[in-house]
Amino acid sequence: MGCCHSCLHYVLDYETPKTLVIQSKAVGFVFRFTQLLVILYVCVVQKGYQETDSVISTVTTKVKGFAYSNTSDLEHRFWDVADYVIPPQGDHSFFVLTNIIVTPNQTQSRCPELPTPSSICTADCDCTEGHSDPRSNGRLSTLGDNKHNGSQTCEVLSWCPLEIDTNLPKHAMLAAAENFTVLIKNSVTYPKFKRNIMPQINSSYLRRCEFNRITDPDCPIFRLKHIVSEAGEDFQSMAVKGGVLGILIDWSCDLDWWAGKCYPKYSFQRLDNKNPNNSVAPGYNFRFARYYKTPDGEETRTLIKGYGIRFDVIVFGTAGKFGIVPTIVNLGAALSFLSLVPAVSDWVMLTCARKKDLYNKHKVTYLNEDSDSESVSG
Amino acid sequence: MGCCHSCLHYVLDYETPKTLVIQSKAVGFVFRFTQLLVILYVCVVQKGYQETDSVISTVTTKVKGFAYSNTSDLEHRFWDVADYVIPPQGDHSFFVLTNIIVTPNQTQSRCPELPTPSSICTADCDCTEGHSDPRSNGRLSTLGDNKHNGSQTCEVLSWCPLEIDTNLPKHAMLAAAENFTVLIKNSVTYPKFKRNIMPQINSSYLRRCEFNRITDPDCPIFRLKHIVSEAGEDFQSMAVKGGVLGILIDWSCDLDWWAGKCYPKYSFQRLDNKNPNNSVAPGYNFRFARYYKTPDGEETRTLIKGYGIRFDVIVFGTAGKFGIVPTIVNLGAALSFLSLVPAVSDWVMLTCARKKDLYNKHKVTYLNEDSDSESVSG
Amino acid sequence: MGCCHSCLHYVLDYETPKTLVIQSKAVGFVFRFTQLLVILYVCVVQKGYQETDSVISTVTTKVKGFAYSNTSDLEHRFWDVADYVIPPQGDHSFFVLTNIIVTPNQTQSRCPELPTPSSICTADCDCTEGHSDPRSNGRLSTLGDNKHNGSQTCEVLSWCPLEIDTNLPKHAMLAAAENFTVLIKNSVTYPKFKRNIMPQINSSYLRRCEFNRITDPDCPIFRLKHIVSEAGEDFQSMAVKGGVLGILIDWSCDLDWWAGKCYPKYSFQRLDNKNPNNSVAPGYNFRFARYYKTPDGEETRTLIKGYGIRFDVIVFGTAGKFGIVPTIVNLGAALSFLSLVPAVSDWVMLTCARKKDLYNKHKVTYLNEDSDSESVSG
Repeated sequence: MGCCHSCLHYVLDYETPKTLVIQSKAVGFVFRFTQLLVILYVCVVQKGYQETDSVISTVTTKVKGFAYSNTSDLEHRFWDVADYVIPPQGDHSFFVLTNIIVTPNQTQSRCPELPTPSSICTADCDCTEGHSDPRSNGRLSTLGDNKHNGSQTCEVLSWCPLEIDTNLPKHAMLAAAENFTVLIKNSVTYPKFKRNIMPQINSSYLRRCEFNRITDPDCPIFRLKHIVSEAGEDFQSMAVKGGVLGILIDWSCDLDWWAGKCYPKYSFQRLDNKNPNNSVAPGYNFRFARYYKTPDGEETRTLIKGYGIRFDVIVFGTAGKFGIVPTIVNLGAALSFLSLVPAVSDWVMLTCARKKDLYNKHKVTYLNEDSDSESVSG
Repeated sequence: MGCCHSCLHYVLDYETPKTLVIQSKAVGFVFRFTQLLVILYVCVVQKGYQETDSVISTVTTKVKGFAYSNTSDLEHRFWDVADYVIPPQGDHSFFVLTNIIVTPNQTQSRCPELPTPSSICTADCDCTEGHSDPRSNGRLSTLGDNKHNGSQTCEVLSWCPLEIDTNLPKHAMLAAAENFTVLIKNSVTYPKFKRNIMPQINSSYLRRCEFNRITDPDCPIFRLKHIVSEAGEDFQSMAVKGGVLGILIDWSCDLDWWAGKCYPKYSFQRLDNKNPNNSVAPGYNFRFARYYKTPDGEETRTLIKGYGIRFDVIVFGTAGKFGIVPTIVNLGAALSFLSLVPAVSDWVMLTCARKKDLYNKHKVTYLNEDSDSESVSG
Repeated sequence: MGCCHSCLHYVLDYETPKTLVIQSKAVGFVFRFTQLLVILYVCVVQKGYQETDSVISTVTTKVKGFAYSNTSDLEHRFWDVADYVIPPQGDHSFFVLTNIIVTPNQTQSRCPELPTPSSICTADCDCTEGHSDPRSNGRLSTLGDNKHNGSQTCEVLSWCPLEIDTNLPKHAMLAAAENFTVLIKNSVTYPKFKRNIMPQINSSYLRRCEFNRITDPDCPIFRLKHIVSEAGEDFQSMAVKGGVLGILIDWSCDLDWWAGKCYPKYSFQRLDNKNPNNSVAPGYNFRFARYYKTPDGEETRTLIKGYGIRFDVIVFGTAGKFGIVPTIVNLGAALSFLSLVPAVSDWVMLTCARKKDLYNKHKVTYLNEDSDSESVSG
């Protein structure tokens, strides 16, 4: 019961520091001024009064342009968007075909395996029916007539004729692709703020403009060659084996009314690893097929190994806007800075002030370890 | 050496405020109460004890429904999912075809350029062989028989016949698409918490339900018309030229056991820019082709300019969960608030308390600038 | 005017606590030591000196392998990448076909509706021309010869013959898919730091390695079977009805030079909901079609309902790096912790120190509620 009483005492006793009020304009001014600085810092530098929200965006891309190819396997040929843009939807990631290896008229049949160190065999070929080697192009079949350009190989059951992707054209087949243009429609939303931001350009400007960092930094129409060169690459050399190129759009915005308009900032960067030392098959390519049916109902396909540049439109950024909650929350940080202020002004007072000895005498009491007596300052 | 000694003094001298303990229940209560408020604020409002993790989600979508078209170029025709959903995979972004311009039986050949102000020429046509104009539809060829509906134009080497995309149907061809339904399978993961959250609905309910903000807010089956109208748009008018529509799923959750279940919140919003003033060609469309081979091996294609609505399922949100580290970290913020408390209780004590003069006398000492003498309060 | 003067007084009066300097090495040491602890905590645990940036990544995937199917509808058949990877681009999300239901040679025509409880009718069939039932497979046409395996149903105008997707192969058709391998090329960027991080492996190693958590944790080549089993699933059973599998790559890095290299951490997880209780049609499948033209120009299609595993490569993580601004900002948190220090050392001083009574006497003054007299401690 006594314990409880003392405990209550402990809880309800209020301990407050003894203070000394100094009626000096100089010191007072220093004090208030430092306080002001802190408040300013928290508001202006930290933007402590803002709550932030990260962007949600939608991207639509539309490529324009046509080109001509003139290669042996496909004769003189015209290419338009439907041919070279894969997938056609044109969302945030689109691929522009620049170089291809075509293997037309493939059918499910048997043909001799391509000659490789592992597949070539001399007189003694053990082509065990049904055995399939992961490194080969299909399941082995019986040893038939498999004279294939001189060297002997087993026959395989596969899409025949087999694709020969060793002789990739040295110069990109669709070199003209560098002059294609792409329109990037991009509008962003900040769900927390219910704000939907549209590009601030009129359509008449859009019809004729083309992006240029200096003259037209806001035009969302880009020439592929320009994008690639801004990323520090050469289009023609990149077009041969392909690659991945990032179009970074930075939507970091300050949505407070006094902050003015909110514009996207574009930057370009090669995203894939072109260094042959730590990657297999640098570049970017994939295989796809077009399926046909012969008049007698047999299925054939044209296998296309397409090389090209994949453009990834990457939208990022956070927006800040005045909010009451973060203001209160960040008050915390502010206060902890404010706790610095007295330290500063005390230091000023006790070192620089004219009457520092006086202040010192009344503020500080020195307690000497050895003696029991108080030794007053000075 | 003496300097070093004094420096050691400076480092090891401990300066502590002189304090006054006031054994007043009233003041003590005010003090503790304010402290309580701060702690509550930090815990409840700021959730300072939680660590957060942003969501990683997977989305699978499945559209159901069929429609009939009845236009000149494609005769009476039946459409099912495989026809109108592009791409077919049904991941977080899917496209529903609502209106199309078809150009069948295109072949690589020559045909007169479409008559445009820039292409039309009177008697004197200089159709330089091989010259290609970016604004045209292909490389110019010799001036052949190019009577094209009265006006003279050069011939071009291209996919012929050329697409004429000027007369877009005024009414969406697949108007019935508004009654298609889409099932959105969405499960999210918070990698930091190793939590994989599944929708909390049973399959029997799923089989018959349809999303409705009031009656069925948790049903992941949506009628396209409903989605569009919730976004404040009219399906039929949007279907003509297409657009992009966002299905926002908010998975902000409190994973602490006492916080109860975690449900997604759905909202809908048109994401593309329908304002014709600051966009070229508002709406959403893209061209794709289907490739055929004639019996005699010649390649033909059907070019389709597809208009429609792209639905982007956007999942966002952060989850909070009790964590010991953030608790300690946020203690910082708490403490800085606690430093407010004494200020408050001092103010109460020195203004409202009955014995305020007594407290004042012992706590505060006024130091008058002018005189050297201390002037006690009051 | 007087009011203004007093107000000025209030603003410029500076109130500072009276302090007691204790020249005790012990107490001083405790004080400085606690300060040190706090500083360390803020720097080491909180990494308060770092600014963070979240990752922007690009992913390219390339699947390798071939398989054979041997089913009734498609006779003995060879499958390669172009056949079973949909979409072919191989970006961050790719789908491997493992099981299919094929409906070849569909044409726009009329055929009897499939017999279901709702469609089957006895003698009295009211097949109202032009009426279409959402649950059916097309618009009803006149009641023609609609004997369909015994039961009577109306005819529908649709892609005929209708797909019968009830008898899904019990064993995955492409069971061999488990031995396919996928190469994941992934390089990340931290836009704020202008850092582009490449995998730290050489190509010769890449050519022969295969991911294994123990032996090859950095090899980006994965065997599908391995991925699925790491996610705690069985490939063959998952392959029948399909599913979604996440390949999570954690790029949380410390980019300060003293922190050493930055490696990705791989983890695998099934993302879709395999629990039949709260999902309709568990698994993952979609329908797509291949369009052909008969010699006489009629359009036919092969409808394929493809089941398989969708692999989503999900890259996440934040990087930290020394920054001057966050250092200053986090100083706030540090300071609020420092405000703890005096409390600690006071407690030590007044309870543990040898001369605690002396300290107590000079530091604390007890003010008794009842009497007006000060009662000194002890």
